Amino acid sequence: MAAACIFCKIIRGEIPSMKIFESDKTFAFLDIGPLSKGHSLIIPKHHGAKLHDIPDEQLSEILAVTKKIAIAQDIQDYNILQNNGRIAHQVVDHVHFHLIPKPNDEEGLGIGWPTKNADKDQLAKLLEDIKAKM
Amino acid sequence: MAAACIFCKIIRGEIPSMKIFESDKTFAFLDIGPLSKGHSLIIPKHHGAKLHDIPDEQLSEILAVTKKIAIAQDIQDYNILQNNGRIAHQVVDHVHFHLIPKPNDEEGLGIGWPTKNADKDQLAKLLEDIKAKM
Repeated sequence: MAAACIFCKIIRGEIPSMKIFESDKTFAFLDIGPLSKGHSLIIPKHHGAKLHDIPDEQLSEILAVTKKIAIAQDIQDYNILQNNGRIAHQVVDHVHFHLIPKPNDEEGLGIGWPTKNADKDQLAKLLEDIKAKM
Repeated sequence: MAAACIFCKIIRGEIPSMKIFESDKTFAFLDIGPLSKGHSLIIPKHHGAKLHDIPDEQLSEILAVTKKIAIAQDIQDYNILQNNGRIAHQVVDHVHFHLIPKPNDEEGLGIGWPTKNADKDQLAKLLEDIKAKM
């Protein structure tokens, strides 16, 4: 837990939230600045700014809870998004997963997909680099 | 497994892939149409089109593997994205999580964030509806 973190304050109940779900390691609530109806945030209680800061065991339940909220909303079209870093659109430095329903083109997450031409040799070299560090 | 699914074929080795990781329930490989260097896909081996189609136990390892790949790449700024439905930018109907490094403004995922004005009373009503179905 971090004293000044707004999401840690929400978990501790020091700031009210529209809580959907809570377990020993996971907390979920409605986003009050939604991109669409039902926009929810699912977070590990363990404080960490980025995904790679959170212990594996604190992550194991996140997707099951996210799925449960999608099913409870009976939505078929939605995006799951988790941002790491200001440049990647992260605003609050406590890992959070957005569940964002996509009811139509105007509402929900907007996605830009600037595909690059991939050089197969460079990809093969990158693959070896990554595998060596796994 | 689905006979015609391109990702099931990749898992079975019928189509080659730049495989990063494989366990009994998870498979990860480089995206050959990357948005940025290191763009990876992490998928459950269990075939299902959307997140809500996948059994919980098949999802428990996904984020730990995603994190492992982020750490192996030594990246600090990145997005995790999982799309459900054509309108939400899903192309392949087998659940997949994108790990997309965000090295600069031009490369990586583009995000549109059309925030709505939230009516607190409507949010409170929605919260009760969701909680009743959790």
